[in-house]
Amino acid sequence: MPTATRGYAAQSASSPIAPFSFERRDPRADDVVIDILYCGICHTDIHQARNEWGRSKYPMVPGHEIIGRVAAVGKDVKDFKPGDMVGVGCLVDSCHHCDACEHDLEQFCAEGPVFTYNGTDRQDKTTTYGGYSERIVVSRKFVLRLPKGLDPKAAAPLLCAGITTYSPLRHWKAGKGTKLAVVGLGGLGHMALKFGKAFGADVTLFTRTPGKEPEAKRLGADHVVLSTDAKQMKDAAGRFDLIIDTVPNEHDVHPYLSTLKRDSHYVIVGQLTPLIPPVQPGALITGRKSITGSLIGGVAETQEMLDFCGQHGIVSDIETIAIQDINKAYERMLKSDVRYRFVIDMATLKA
Amino acid sequence: MPTATRGYAAQSASSPIAPFSFERRDPRADDVVIDILYCGICHTDIHQARNEWGRSKYPMVPGHEIIGRVAAVGKDVKDFKPGDMVGVGCLVDSCHHCDACEHDLEQFCAEGPVFTYNGTDRQDKTTTYGGYSERIVVSRKFVLRLPKGLDPKAAAPLLCAGITTYSPLRHWKAGKGTKLAVVGLGGLGHMALKFGKAFGADVTLFTRTPGKEPEAKRLGADHVVLSTDAKQMKDAAGRFDLIIDTVPNEHDVHPYLSTLKRDSHYVIVGQLTPLIPPVQPGALITGRKSITGSLIGGVAETQEMLDFCGQHGIVSDIETIAIQDINKAYERMLKSDVRYRFVIDMATLKA
Repeated sequence: MPTATRGYAAQSASSPIAPFSFERRDPRADDVVIDILYCGICHTDIHQARNEWGRSKYPMVPGHEIIGRVAAVGKDVKDFKPGDMVGVGCLVDSCHHCDACEHDLEQFCAEGPVFTYNGTDRQDKTTTYGGYSERIVVSRKFVLRLPKGLDPKAAAPLLCAGITTYSPLRHWKAGKGTKLAVVGLGGLGHMALKFGKAFGADVTLFTRTPGKEPEAKRLGADHVVLSTDAKQMKDAAGRFDLIIDTVPNEHDVHPYLSTLKRDSHYVIVGQLTPLIPPVQPGALITGRKSITGSLIGGVAETQEMLDFCGQHGIVSDIETIAIQDINKAYERMLKSDVRYRFVIDMATLKA
Repeated sequence: MPTATRGYAAQSASSPIAPFSFERRDPRADDVVIDILYCGICHTDIHQARNEWGRSKYPMVPGHEIIGRVAAVGKDVKDFKPGDMVGVGCLVDSCHHCDACEHDLEQFCAEGPVFTYNGTDRQDKTTTYGGYSERIVVSRKFVLRLPKGLDPKAAAPLLCAGITTYSPLRHWKAGKGTKLAVVGLGGLGHMALKFGKAFGADVTLFTRTPGKEPEAKRLGADHVVLSTDAKQMKDAAGRFDLIIDTVPNEHDVHPYLSTLKRDSHYVIVGQLTPLIPPVQPGALITGRKSITGSLIGGVAETQEMLDFCGQHGIVSDIETIAIQDINKAYERMLKSDVRYRFVIDMATLKA
């Protein structure tokens, strides 16, 4: 018999996030039931809650940066037990048999991965509900183990902001000797600085806002380039092996492309709106540069990232909020007024 | 004393290409004087003659697909002698000391390579004049050797159309097992089919025009996909390891991006106008696909390409014209009415 579950949801594109009760499914044989302790707030939550991508289904319970404690497991689950500290990220299922799934890249599943919220369960066809709630039931394969020693609330954003920046840095082999640049210092950007530094790269932050140097250096940057300063941008021409662009809003990529070395990559991880002004092929042709993108990471890589964070003591810089303050938090995020990720303390749901 | 030279030039963006006499410099110590036999007509010639890129200097003598015979050499030139069959492509000089030049990638010279026409000579600061003329004087390093056995007039387009497609196919390792697609069947496209086939790739042509199948297969395509046919495009989803886009005009790249495999590359070699409709990052992020570009090739690689063509009997499919028909040829090119490259027989200059 499905379990009554308290949460917060958007009822339409224009309504605030508000209390909402719903039912979580009974655990299937391979399911893990998780009591949610913390849930990070991702910019995607705002886009989706407000139907800015045009694919939203309501009611919607956002949240895909989930940390919790195992409450129960299905009969076939042998490797998790009640009490274990676990995480759930952006994905809760995939087809398991396509080429992408077979290569541990479930985020690129040919049949479409099942997202943690606003997705459709492959078995019962219900809409998935995310982490702004007291409990979630997830197939064992998509449950991550939280390493000991990490602050659970500060680890929550690793499940999306963390893997979204870890994965491209690994894929494009950022390491010792790499001149890495990160565009934007928000939830994603501050994690990219931390990982870049931990991987041994020489890390530069591009920012439009003067005065961020001390913060950026504390987070792992070796250098800061003010992208609004023509001389600093000119001096950076042809300097970087890899650029990770974490900015979620429309912006001109050409000034940054000019700072790439020959045969280097510009990786978009934050923006989902069209590239305007439109890309000039000459900016790519001259130097054989590429514009590419990266989407979170597969389950195995997400576990690898968590384990790496456990070994290196890496978590997100967060501000904890009560669930009742969620709409205020959205407004502050839209003004970039958060250092660097909001995390909901789900105990407040019972307040 | 500089040599009086007959040629054809544009006097302004709106004037036809017409007879023009000018002086070629006396050979410097490292120069090769070349009597031009044939010159291919590249789409760039039209763009530049008509100032479509906004950087044209007049008078302009276009032409950078040059085949000729050595007439004389400067005193330091030991490896060419009068009578040798040679070629000159898009470049006639570069700085020789930047990182790109040191890696035999003179096309990406940090100080800007000197283009064969509409460029500025590094020594005397004069504007360079190209191959629509009876003679050219070029620094030895930028003179290519024409392998024996190749028809000189059909080899002329190898100097631009050839290397522009050869270089990206080599760089992105097209070979046995590669599913390669070529967008567009013109001067560049037909060379991409020939090289793709010669490298052992499984070659597909994307075309908007029905009925090109026999021609495409004769030139090296294994398959043809009609890009205006929704079903054919859907069937091609996720099929290709590498796509070379040779189309010079504005066109939507998204339908082609959807036919790339995960972690694959879309290489623009033909278009220099902005990518409109603007690129949707989602088309790159989903599958970690990249949009990139490639520009001709360096001198060493151009020689390697010519030698490869000599070994495999590869030349361009051409239509030979008299220089007096140059304006008519431009009009036909704008209607894609050429199979597949016009080459000027420079003997007609003396008619």
